[in-house]
Amino acid sequence: MIRVEKAKRHHLADIVAMLANDPIGSTREDASEPLNPAYIAAFNAISADQNQFLAVALLDQSVVGTLHLSFIPGLALTGAWRGQIESVRIRQDHRDAGLGGTMIEWAIGRCREKGCRIVQLTTDKSRRDAHRFYERLGFEATHEGYKLKL
Amino acid sequence: MIRVEKAKRHHLADIVAMLANDPIGSTREDASEPLNPAYIAAFNAISADQNQFLAVALLDQSVVGTLHLSFIPGLALTGAWRGQIESVRIRQDHRDAGLGGTMIEWAIGRCREKGCRIVQLTTDKSRRDAHRFYERLGFEATHEGYKLKL
Repeated sequence: MIRVEKAKRHHLADIVAMLANDPIGSTREDASEPLNPAYIAAFNAISADQNQFLAVALLDQSVVGTLHLSFIPGLALTGAWRGQIESVRIRQDHRDAGLGGTMIEWAIGRCREKGCRIVQLTTDKSRRDAHRFYERLGFEATHEGYKLKL
Repeated sequence: MIRVEKAKRHHLADIVAMLANDPIGSTREDASEPLNPAYIAAFNAISADQNQFLAVALLDQSVVGTLHLSFIPGLALTGAWRGQIESVRIRQDHRDAGLGGTMIEWAIGRCREKGCRIVQLTTDKSRRDAHRFYERLGFEATHEGYKLKL
């Protein structure tokens, strides 16, 4: 049985390993041990903000997936809260088993509970499997996702 | 002289009017007076969150532009903060005068001060002028922007 719940500090190394074990992530994450202190600082910043929810999917006690959900207040859409999903990863040996769908459906449920009227995410244009995956879940690619590196 | 600063409660009606005076915004905003209480609740939620910054561009005391900047902590990119720009609007009689560029450059400057390593935004695929505008400012359309309405 998969459980999705708030990540705890002792899950962090497993989450970082999943972020790094990815064609894009491998170019920009630091999977070395001991854990890069920047990840610990980020974990603490996420934990201190009640509108951030870093989730793990657990199978028994093992971390097999992660995503980061942000709740963002806004004026647009007549003052709608948005839920934003970022950094979705499934452990390599648990891919293609429906776990991603379980995690995204869980996130959508949290967004409904929060009263969000929209759920949004961006995904790299090279991730074609991800596009099909999100479209099956009802997402529409209505927007261009622009990034500027500083 | 244009000043960009944190929006105050007395700017809110002018901001909502700009959100509504837009081909897409006109279908989903409520520009009626008195102000829809949902906008006041949203303004209060934004103001209560130190990682949200609702900005106005002022010419003398008049509101001529707005944008909403969110600072989002995250694990990805080795624990990078992201700056996210949303709800950019210029008052109709001040468009095509460089004000949009001034506002986005201002937002990028705030992101640098905060230590963000990426600035991101999504824009509707139908807004072709906006695409050219962001590309001129150095943004790259590397991502698909998915939305799910609840």
